[in-house]
This record gives sequence, C-alpha cells and structure tokens, in this order.
Amino acid sequence: MNKIKRVAIIGGTHGNELTGIYLVKKFAREPNLIARSTFETMALLANPKACEIGKRYIDIDLNRCFLRQDLENPNLSSYEAQRAKEIYHIFSSKNTEHSDLIIDLHSTTAQMGLTFILDSRHPFNLRLAAHLTSFYPNLKVLASGTENEDSSVLRSISKLGCTLEVGAVAQGVLDGTLFQQTEELVGTILDCIEADNQGTIPPVKNPLTIYQKIQSIDYPRNESGELQAMIHPRLQFRDYEPLNPGDPMFLTFDGESVLYEGKSTVYPVFINEAAYYEKGIAMYLTQKQIVISQ
Amino acid sequence: MNKIKRVAIIGGTHGNELTGIYLVKKFAREPNLIARSTFETMALLANPKACEIGKRYIDIDLNRCFLRQDLENPNLSSYEAQRAKEIYHIFSSKNTEHSDLIIDLHSTTAQMGLTFILDSRHPFNLRLAAHLTSFYPNLKVLASGTENEDSSVLRSISKLGCTLEVGAVAQGVLDGTLFQQTEELVGTILDCIEADNQGTIPPVKNPLTIYQKIQSIDYPRNESGELQAMIHPRLQFRDYEPLNPGDPMFLTFDGESVLYEGKSTVYPVFINEAAYYEKGIAMYLTQKQIVISQ
Repeated sequence: MNKIKRVAIIGGTHGNELTGIYLVKKFAREPNLIARSTFETMALLANPKACEIGKRYIDIDLNRCFLRQDLENPNLSSYEAQRAKEIYHIFSSKNTEHSDLIIDLHSTTAQMGLTFILDSRHPFNLRLAAHLTSFYPNLKVLASGTENEDSSVLRSISKLGCTLEVGAVAQGVLDGTLFQQTEELVGTILDCIEADNQGTIPPVKNPLTIYQKIQSIDYPRNESGELQAMIHPRLQFRDYEPLNPGDPMFLTFDGESVLYEGKSTVYPVFINEAAYYEKGIAMYLTQKQIVISQ
Repeated sequence: MNKIKRVAIIGGTHGNELTGIYLVKKFAREPNLIARSTFETMALLANPKACEIGKRYIDIDLNRCFLRQDLENPNLSSYEAQRAKEIYHIFSSKNTEHSDLIIDLHSTTAQMGLTFILDSRHPFNLRLAAHLTSFYPNLKVLASGTENEDSSVLRSISKLGCTLEVGAVAQGVLDGTLFQQTEELVGTILDCIEADNQGTIPPVKNPLTIYQKIQSIDYPRNESGELQAMIHPRLQFRDYEPLNPGDPMFLTFDGESVLYEGKSTVYPVFINEAAYYEKGIAMYLTQKQIVISQ
C-alpha cells in the first residue's frame, strides 16, 4: 500500500462536542505538536458555525451528509450540505485508493471511554488498532459495519478514515481528563503512522478485540413517538459489557423493567447518547470478535 | 403562617433537562400521584416549545425572565418573556405573602447529586429542608443568596419557591436512577407539606447544613472571551467538597494548573455546568453553614 501522505485531524463535526473543537484549535495554534516528517498534518474545524453557537448542527447533522449522491446533488443547500461539499473538495477522493487519512474527533454522553471507530478492516487499520490497544489496553475498537457500503459519515471520505469517540461527557462540556487522553492518543496515532511510513513499526502479536455493530435499538415509544421508557439503571454506563438474554434494558416511567429478548449475548455501545434520541437510537448492539493480526 | 393551599410542580423550564419534563408529564397523566388532602397540586411544563425541540430555550433563558420589571415590561416580546408573563399570571403573587409553593425541577451536568435550592430562609423552608435531609442524608441544601432581592428565576414568583437540582446528567439525557430519586423526593416534599398543613410534622432537632452561594467564578479567558483553561481534573465532579487556598481549579490547554487564590476554604457547586459557559460561570463558590432549626 501507498504511504500515508496527509493526515487530517478534524474536530467540531458536531458543534457541541468540545473535546475535538478545543484540541483542533490547540493544534492550529501549535502545529509542531502534530507535525511528523513523512506526512503532512492538518487540523480542521468541520462545522465552524455550529461550534460558534455550541449546537450539534445548524440545519442537519453534518456527520450524515457524506453520501456520494448527496455530495453530488447541487440541490442540497443546507449549511451542512454545503460544508460537506467543501470538506469533500479538500480531499476529493471518496472511494478511491489514496493516501489521506482522516481522524474525526467526537465525544459521547455514553460511557465509552476511549473508542477507536473504523469502517474498514484494511490491514493498515487493523495494524493501527492493534498498536493502539497495545499502548492503551483500555482503548476499545468499534467497527461500524459500513465497509463496502457508501456511508454518510465524514470519515468515509477517507478510505482509511477513523473516529475517536470519547466519553462519558455531556454536550457542551470540556472534560480535562478526556481532553488530555485524547491529545495523547492523537499523538500516538501520528507516531504509529510515521513508523508505518518508515517501515519501522514492529508486528503486533496480540489478538485484537473488535466490537462489530450489528443493529440499533430504539427506546420503547407510544404511537405518537413519545418515549415510554428510559435506559435501565442496570444498563446505564455499561457500554461494552455483556448484555445477556433476559437482562434489563429499559425501565418504564412506572418502574417496570423491559428485558433484552435477543437469543445471544451482545455488547451495547452508545447507551443513552443524547444526540441519538432524535435518531431513534437508544443504543447499538455489537458482537465481540477476536481478530488475529497478520 | 398560612397553610400552603397550592403546590406547582414545574418541569421543562429548560427544554433539554429531561428529568423534570418526563416527571411532569407523568404527574399530568397520573394526578393521583401528587394529590394530597390539604392542598391542590398542579404539574406544569414551563417552556413547552423548548421541550419540543429539546433545547434549553427558544430565544432567551426562561429562568432569567422573572424580574418584576421584566414581567411588567410590555415591550419584551421574546417567546420566553411572554411565557414568563403567562406563568406569572397563573400565580399573580410576586413578593406578596401568599400560600403557593413552586417546586421547579432542574438537572445539571455538575455532580450535585440531589440538591434542594432555596432563596428564602423562611422558617417553613428551613423546616422542610431539615425534614428532607433527615430522610435523605445525601441531599444537599443550597441557598442562592437572593433573599430580599428581586430575582429573575422562576421559583422567585413564589415566596417559598424552591428548586430541585439533580446531576450529574448530560443535557438531553434521561437518567433512570435520577428520575426515580427525583420522583421519590417530590413525593416526600408533598408529604411534608401535608403534615405541616395538618400540624403533625414533628420538630427536627438535627442541625441543618446549608451551602450559601457567595460568588461565581468564570473560566480563564483571553481578550476575545475564548476559554484558556478547563476545570481541573482534580476539581471535576467534586461539587460540595472543600476547595482550599492553593488547590488546583483550572487546567490550561497546555497542561498548567491554575490554583485557587482565595483566603479561606470554600465549597464549589455547579462545577462545569454546560449551560453556564455562555453565562461566564465555571462554578459557584459557597460557604458551608450550620443552622440550628427552631
């Protein structure tokens, strides 16, 4: 594979996720922090208007604007649709082999700690993930399941694109610990890319655990779409922990438990993410997979 | 003093604080839960438009719209200014002796657990607070310091008005545990009022601890108003714990600690509340006071 020639560190795809916004601002002020010898690094604020007002988006979710058909549709004129086209033109490379890597920085109200999200199981991504988890044993690797499909998320305009998702942190809040951990992790990613470009990255022998998204689960709702239950207290903040058939998932407002009726153990993530209420997502279920790196 | 004749349980003063919104909806569906024999209870959604879109407010913060001069100003026409006048007319009683009690339900991204906020140290309020803390030893009592001043918050239209502030919970998120705890606490408040009206409430002998707000502290900012530091990780989620001179308060983006330079121990609250960034408030400092009930 070609060497990586350009890395884009992107923050503020959602204007109320402050970790990425303030990290990108810091990197823009101090570009030496992200400079490496074998590739160019840029720091980009994806949705500056939303960042300015501290809201997730102005018109629509920017991180759902990157389907190829939408990027090529001249009739889409929302602020985010236009901004997506601008960002796409910086890269101009959707679904073609190339040498750009996007790292999109997000935060979540779910207790997901430090999570590395990837779409593709390209050997480069698996190698990077394996190295990162060897440095950060608590780092989780989440596969989104959109490989080989057109995807609407920003990272998808880079074939090797990935997201760092950190939490739990409330929207509109800066958490000092998560800020420092994310900064360190970004630095390690850049070091790994540098070593990979230089051919000096050692092989990782440890098996890699990947959580593969399999489906989303909505809250119980009435016919008007109103919530009828909340995440069950025994599931709240238990991202990546096993959910077994018969375990409580939701709690109605009258105190009744709603149980998980699936047939096998799953590992929920994005449990009670604030931004997903409007998307009809209470959590994603994942399967835990072990990948032996090559 | 007169008996309490009407209690208003108010939720959704801020449209992204879901605990109060869903509790008020539940009470509206099941009014028997809040009915007591010696007074009327009403459940009111304060800012329905903001609740509908899940934002704190439409135009301005409703919980800063209740200054007498603003309520009487016909030129104020924002949605919240109008809504404040409507709510005020339901009570029509600002700063006069009366028999209405407002309980305003809020949530915060700060780790404030269950907090009972009062403006007035009226014997009724102190009696109620003392009873509640005898039932809930972890409940904190916070005095806002606006006694004898005109106040802009909703609860101020009721002389004995109080707020329940629960957290930490992200904006736009329902936390099952906090929902159930708040519901139970509201029930206990109603029971206490009932017993007080009936003259059957026993005296409380335990001293009452009150945290008295003394000042707000802003984040370090540059001349453009941009943040230059975050809450220090050693202070994050430490609401109501002692902050001593020389203790770290903030952490700059370059990792330098900013220390508390006051002369005496204080007890910060509302540490890193998301909604207060725009208000220039990183936390409130309080003094811890012991009140012997009469």
